[in-house]
Amino acid sequence: MNNDDLRVCFVGDSFVAGTNDPEYLGWTGRVAALAWRRGYPLTCYNLGIRRETSSDIARRWLSEASCRLPEHCRTFLVFSFGVNDTTLENGRTRVAEAQSVENTRPILKAAEERHSVLLVGPPPIGDNDQNQRTEHLSRRMSEVAAQEGVPFLSVFEALSQDPVWMAEVNADDGAHPRAAGYEKLAALVDRWPAWWFK
Amino acid sequence: MNNDDLRVCFVGDSFVAGTNDPEYLGWTGRVAALAWRRGYPLTCYNLGIRRETSSDIARRWLSEASCRLPEHCRTFLVFSFGVNDTTLENGRTRVAEAQSVENTRPILKAAEERHSVLLVGPPPIGDNDQNQRTEHLSRRMSEVAAQEGVPFLSVFEALSQDPVWMAEVNADDGAHPRAAGYEKLAALVDRWPAWWFK
Repeated sequence: MNNDDLRVCFVGDSFVAGTNDPEYLGWTGRVAALAWRRGYPLTCYNLGIRRETSSDIARRWLSEASCRLPEHCRTFLVFSFGVNDTTLENGRTRVAEAQSVENTRPILKAAEERHSVLLVGPPPIGDNDQNQRTEHLSRRMSEVAAQEGVPFLSVFEALSQDPVWMAEVNADDGAHPRAAGYEKLAALVDRWPAWWFK
Repeated sequence: MNNDDLRVCFVGDSFVAGTNDPEYLGWTGRVAALAWRRGYPLTCYNLGIRRETSSDIARRWLSEASCRLPEHCRTFLVFSFGVNDTTLENGRTRVAEAQSVENTRPILKAAEERHSVLLVGPPPIGDNDQNQRTEHLSRRMSEVAAQEGVPFLSVFEALSQDPVWMAEVNADDGAHPRAAGYEKLAALVDRWPAWWFK
């Protein structure tokens, strides 16, 4: 068992929050439970909020993470957002792609000053047009992450080709999976070489 | 299945956060999963933070809850705190009992203006002297809650007499149970008549 006091904040949108998982674990609870079994008793805080765009997250993440990641602990931040940015409202995306990119950069920059940081890209949903925008945004986010030296996990392609994820998304509200879909996303994060708790 | 958009924030300390539960559900995840099985697909946000006293929670709860409980939804708040208030530091409790009471009152008052509200009392830990202070504080909190018209659940006595809770608390860090203990606390909340999702 690792004796360090390890504190992790997961910051993002409804996918981070685990919306529509009847088991109330989402992907974050599942990766935490896997880490525990390997001897890392993580303290995890889930800071996902439904409907939030990168602009919403840019406004709140620092105050919410700061009171959860004290200096005497080893502290980690995982961000994941983007799908709500690419949603159409009144004929335009809720956040323009260039703005999404410009929201992401200072988040990563400020987070890295104090914590270990990872960025997980946005997943596909049940809307093909929006998925095209999300896939493009995911690529732009990966470029920003590379520039800032933050490891980026693209989940878009793997989940688009995952029959479990896509079936659950389409069977339910057109956006969120249920337990099995979240388990698939958790597995992608868990086997990602950049994930800390191996 | 209930079609209302039901949003619940659980606000409090490490017991709310589910610290030391290897299954990463805590009591809040367990009561949510039970509610789902009865047809209430709750959106839950866990706003428990380790080491936080009633003074810490008084400072942050409103901003954190507000962005998670939008007006177009049916919104619910469950508070639970107190054990960290009664911890000794340099010969005095971290928060004086009178101050704990005066922190609790405005939290409940402001929360009730917009949301359905419950208060769950502090549980026992592995320290008999602190438990006496916590039991006394729990009684004072129940009085404040009654004055403010907020249902209060005392868990102190039931968990003190619960061999599963006390064994897990004492076997681990002297404060937090593991999965089985959190399941016991979840059962107390779930069968409480004031709990909304029956």
